[in-house]
Amino acid sequence: MNARISPPPTLRAVRMRLHAQHQPIAVMRTDCHVCHSEGLSPRSQVLVIAGERQVQALLYQIDSDLLSPGQVALSEAAWHALDIQEGAQVQVRHAPILRSLAGIRRRIHGQRLSAQDLDAIVRDVVAGRYTDVALSAFLTATAALPLDTEETVHLTRAMIDVGERLSWDAPVVVDKHCVGGLPGNRTTPLVVAIAAANGLVMPKTSSRAITSPAGTADTMETLAPVNLDLDTMRRVVETEGGCLAWGGTMALSPADDLFVRVERELDIDTEGQLIASVLSKKIAAGATHAVIDIPVGPTAKVRSHDAAHLLAQRLSETAAHFGLALRCLFTDGTQPVGRGIGPALEAMDVLAVLKHDPGAPQDLLDRAVLVAGAVLELGGAAAAGDGTRLALDTIASGGAWDKFQRICNAQGGLREPPRAAFIEPILAPHSGRVVHIDNRKLSRLAKLAGAPESPAAGVHLQVRLGDEIAKDQPMLFLHAQTRGELAYALEFSREAESLILVGS
Amino acid sequence: MNARISPPPTLRAVRMRLHAQHQPIAVMRTDCHVCHSEGLSPRSQVLVIAGERQVQALLYQIDSDLLSPGQVALSEAAWHALDIQEGAQVQVRHAPILRSLAGIRRRIHGQRLSAQDLDAIVRDVVAGRYTDVALSAFLTATAALPLDTEETVHLTRAMIDVGERLSWDAPVVVDKHCVGGLPGNRTTPLVVAIAAANGLVMPKTSSRAITSPAGTADTMETLAPVNLDLDTMRRVVETEGGCLAWGGTMALSPADDLFVRVERELDIDTEGQLIASVLSKKIAAGATHAVIDIPVGPTAKVRSHDAAHLLAQRLSETAAHFGLALRCLFTDGTQPVGRGIGPALEAMDVLAVLKHDPGAPQDLLDRAVLVAGAVLELGGAAAAGDGTRLALDTIASGGAWDKFQRICNAQGGLREPPRAAFIEPILAPHSGRVVHIDNRKLSRLAKLAGAPESPAAGVHLQVRLGDEIAKDQPMLFLHAQTRGELAYALEFSREAESLILVGS
Repeated sequence: MNARISPPPTLRAVRMRLHAQHQPIAVMRTDCHVCHSEGLSPRSQVLVIAGERQVQALLYQIDSDLLSPGQVALSEAAWHALDIQEGAQVQVRHAPILRSLAGIRRRIHGQRLSAQDLDAIVRDVVAGRYTDVALSAFLTATAALPLDTEETVHLTRAMIDVGERLSWDAPVVVDKHCVGGLPGNRTTPLVVAIAAANGLVMPKTSSRAITSPAGTADTMETLAPVNLDLDTMRRVVETEGGCLAWGGTMALSPADDLFVRVERELDIDTEGQLIASVLSKKIAAGATHAVIDIPVGPTAKVRSHDAAHLLAQRLSETAAHFGLALRCLFTDGTQPVGRGIGPALEAMDVLAVLKHDPGAPQDLLDRAVLVAGAVLELGGAAAAGDGTRLALDTIASGGAWDKFQRICNAQGGLREPPRAAFIEPILAPHSGRVVHIDNRKLSRLAKLAGAPESPAAGVHLQVRLGDEIAKDQPMLFLHAQTRGELAYALEFSREAESLILVGS
Repeated sequence: MNARISPPPTLRAVRMRLHAQHQPIAVMRTDCHVCHSEGLSPRSQVLVIAGERQVQALLYQIDSDLLSPGQVALSEAAWHALDIQEGAQVQVRHAPILRSLAGIRRRIHGQRLSAQDLDAIVRDVVAGRYTDVALSAFLTATAALPLDTEETVHLTRAMIDVGERLSWDAPVVVDKHCVGGLPGNRTTPLVVAIAAANGLVMPKTSSRAITSPAGTADTMETLAPVNLDLDTMRRVVETEGGCLAWGGTMALSPADDLFVRVERELDIDTEGQLIASVLSKKIAAGATHAVIDIPVGPTAKVRSHDAAHLLAQRLSETAAHFGLALRCLFTDGTQPVGRGIGPALEAMDVLAVLKHDPGAPQDLLDRAVLVAGAVLELGGAAAAGDGTRLALDTIASGGAWDKFQRICNAQGGLREPPRAAFIEPILAPHSGRVVHIDNRKLSRLAKLAGAPESPAAGVHLQVRLGDEIAKDQPMLFLHAQTRGELAYALEFSREAESLILVGS
């Protein structure tokens, strides 16, 4: 039998200049000889091979003279993965059988995943072999029956192993993370500035938003370049002791971004995934000591102190497997921190605190010095119990602001956050006291207004819990870059009950 | 606030002639004014509106002169849903918020779904509002924590309600279904011919393959047209008493096909989904009495008699909610039925039985008369205990073959099943007795060879359990339409252990 006796036929690659995020796409003529000989049909997964490189792509078929039967048109993600020139010869065939899916099927039916299973899954995900259906099945199955401690350790290790791993020429490398769920809680730029100003090494890599209207990387990007390559990052850390980079360019735990896109669409974010996501990034970034801020509140991600303690315990257990020293802080998660929700609006809050403006949000300052204090103590830069005072002094003296400017300039230059084209108030329905603020709905509102894709978009809060407010006084301002998004957010603000509840 | 004071801008529709199965796709220029004003980014879900019609589509963006900034290119699914002409004016905006996803999130976290939840989910699925991520999350969540009886009833009702529902001018309308998992078990055409020949009304609608290499509709399509519209189906049933149609054209339980595509990719097929799928189709098709064939065997879909009894009980409980009389048969599921696996190869087995050929597969005949006997008894055409004898007589007398030809001709004409371009034997590795046949791996093999997309493709078995076989004697023949698929199947047959196990 010699089904492969002749070399498989090649096609000429055409760059379609089609944007589809991470998704590689191939388009072939329905009457293409390769479609016939391979038995390919629309929406099947194909392997596109160019020399030593290959990429798995989603196939569509076309009946049009835009393409000739001997061509295959490729999306940008496919084009870049193959690194080819216009007209290059490529081969297209059935994608290989996705063996790691068997583990997910067993997991759906209640069996636990081994280290080998998770390693195979994460490798296939990073290699682009997982369709949205398979990715969603993995994340849903591990949300429905949550990952246990062993699986979480295995997943963390698999996520570290599949990416780069940084090492720093320092015995202590500090890091911090907030488990999120609290809009506007943008302490990271402040903590890095304070820690670095006190001589600690804090090479911070942050992610973009998962289900929130802004991640630290989104916020920082409105203040300075964050897409640093590793050489730039090393230079910034060597000279300034700290940096504020987006982790994505570093390929640290690269599976995380792929999981995050699907979690964002489903709006689920499970404990095991969260732990693996947080710890894999910290460990891959070379941290030896990390402070985890866990805001607790009825509409925060962690809703009770019991849940917070459980999460802290699981985080510490998992971290211990990797020799990472961890300290968890439980903070107030009953309302947003600062006034801005959205990349640029949060950046403005950060700047006000750094400059020690009299009008700076006190709550953001308080939290930043609390977290920074823990980092200073854990990293050995402050005595036990003295961290918060030292952190506050570093803000008050201007040392943190000076260090922040140096870091931003080393990253490519401090810049002004953008301002939105459309600003619209949402008014109090009647006079009274603010008795409830729904963090989840505020996040939703900021996202509908365009955050984080539009950095200037979001929500600018005018009230806090307990404030007295008059009828028709603005409770918040919506900021949007487009009319469509403004209308979309306004529609939601009208429909959503108790976004901000004013007692009578 | 007048974000919508001016009418939203329109775009000119371009037919891309792009095939992507059910998936509607829209392509717009990255610099298109609507992308800017609506804040649209690649891979977002958009609503495309043309007059009274609208369709939700997956958006890609392009930087190329193939499209101008005032145009939107649409895939075939989008084009047909909108029913427009080239250059028609359409609007594109953000897809509405998918509210039913909240139910799926609750379900992932262990809460049960109400009738309202399931109704909303199924309506959104059928309206094309579910992405692959959302569809996969629903099916995975209801596999990880299986649907309970109440949820199964609600899902069944939701799946019926969202589609057409047939009614027949007859007090008794019989139907049958095999829960699958047994390659080649193609009794349906035989049962319909026998039932109709004995005066019963059996307007059979069948589905295409889910995870198997052929569904009854795939097999029947090699013998006669099965894409019947409702008028044709009624005419066939009025004159002949029975028909063998593909259910898809009838929009009976239209959510099923959308679920099936994702279940096929994941290769999961859960009990609750199975019950809702089977019963919603039977009830929507107007059946009053149905026989369910449940093959039991270690590599069949149902692996033990306990599991079969549980399934039968849940099927009967659910059917009772809808006034459907059910009889479940437990049959031998230890090995494939007949010799062919794949649409055309199974059709040839069916023809041999109908013609009462001396070489016809005895096991297929035995099963067909067993199931047909139960149908005859349940439908009142045979006394209790006399069904099987009457069914066998109907085959032996030529009455079934006569009726089958009449039905096929009424559907548009009896035709010859196609034959494959490539046929390749797989030989016995040594002499001995056949001690094990793996149904699942055989199905996989037939699918890799191209079944059911290539109707002629599949597996033609040459041995049964217990047969003595000599070294290098063919155990089966692979049939494929393309070299690529043949190579793919051969590769699997070499790698797969114990596809057919020959004892020594």
